[in-house]
Amino acid sequence: MTKHLLRDLDQLKKHLLEVGGLVEDAIHKATTALLERRVDLAQEVMGGDGEIDDREVAIEEECLKILALHQPVAADLRFIVAVLKVNNDLERMGDLAVNIAERSQELAATAPTPMPTGFPIMIAKVEEMVRDCLGALVALDMDRARKVVDADDEVDDIHRQTFLEMQGIMREHPDQVVRATAIISVSRNLERIADQATNIAEDVMFMVDGDIVRHGGASTP
Amino acid sequence: MTKHLLRDLDQLKKHLLEVGGLVEDAIHKATTALLERRVDLAQEVMGGDGEIDDREVAIEEECLKILALHQPVAADLRFIVAVLKVNNDLERMGDLAVNIAERSQELAATAPTPMPTGFPIMIAKVEEMVRDCLGALVALDMDRARKVVDADDEVDDIHRQTFLEMQGIMREHPDQVVRATAIISVSRNLERIADQATNIAEDVMFMVDGDIVRHGGASTP
Repeated sequence: MTKHLLRDLDQLKKHLLEVGGLVEDAIHKATTALLERRVDLAQEVMGGDGEIDDREVAIEEECLKILALHQPVAADLRFIVAVLKVNNDLERMGDLAVNIAERSQELAATAPTPMPTGFPIMIAKVEEMVRDCLGALVALDMDRARKVVDADDEVDDIHRQTFLEMQGIMREHPDQVVRATAIISVSRNLERIADQATNIAEDVMFMVDGDIVRHGGASTP
Repeated sequence: MTKHLLRDLDQLKKHLLEVGGLVEDAIHKATTALLERRVDLAQEVMGGDGEIDDREVAIEEECLKILALHQPVAADLRFIVAVLKVNNDLERMGDLAVNIAERSQELAATAPTPMPTGFPIMIAKVEEMVRDCLGALVALDMDRARKVVDADDEVDDIHRQTFLEMQGIMREHPDQVVRATAIISVSRNLERIADQATNIAEDVMFMVDGDIVRHGGASTP
């Protein structure tokens, strides 16, 4: 690898982690807005999404430049392709955080009712997954990637549990249908963020191992 | 462009359209399973997803090979990057079709009730969007891409309408909460497929125009 390519890849990693930080921050604010009924935080998330969108476009351009300029092969090429996909995933995670912020704002306008019991753990897990999948990518850390994949099942379980909890509430308290469907929506958006983090982690494992980890190992090369 | 690169890009387009055909087919079967209570079709969709997953991996490898072998630049490079992202999107559309198939199977086991009034139009629109975004990509057809972006608003409207329709049913008939939430889930999965198609169409417009169409035009280059 030439010194220039090395330097450009380092920059690329740095920029990707910066977007990751913005996305983590958006998720944290959106969920705090939910739990603490903080409309101001929800609005910050909505207002900050343009920055994440801009960064996505800039990182894609950076990847294209590196490909055209250095024409990398083998592991470097595979890494850049992974960055292109992860970059896309991060932007969508930002959109999902905006969805959560929107629901949080709506819920803050209704009478306060207890949140699902699993939410604090679910939120903490999802935030950790986002951090870990990006950490795994830049360090090509197989163990950290596997940790993300394992955590996804726990998040899925909490989502299912919340879903049933809310269905029960709707059956018994038809006047709470709007609130309960908004909470299901938050839970689903959290679960989708976890899915995106899992996709990234699986891409990392695929890159490190050269093996097919994706799609639950069901597919053959 | 060398003759070899041209030939390889043609092959790539052909393979991408084949996966697109599989995805369209999966969406069509999953929604027919829903409307006609055809559990057999739902199971076909679930069983066929492995094929779509395998194709995704194969197309990504094909892209990597073309990048390493021909080291394309400018428009060709941009096209391959778009294919990498679209390939990823197609695989996820396949997953969304599986989600619909799963809900269809569940709903077929409950007492038959009328489907939301907007579903037949929504389904037809979503299938058309999938076809159009891929057509737009391989022909770099700006008008066809714009058609997809425009259709997305209509699908969003129908989704919102279905959502409200189902909330009303849950409020008045608490015994139908499970059925209504399953229908909302189908509607949301259709809306997400439309979103993916819109992402693809926006990528095409971005590629053709070199301009920032993505993210609602809100971002600056």
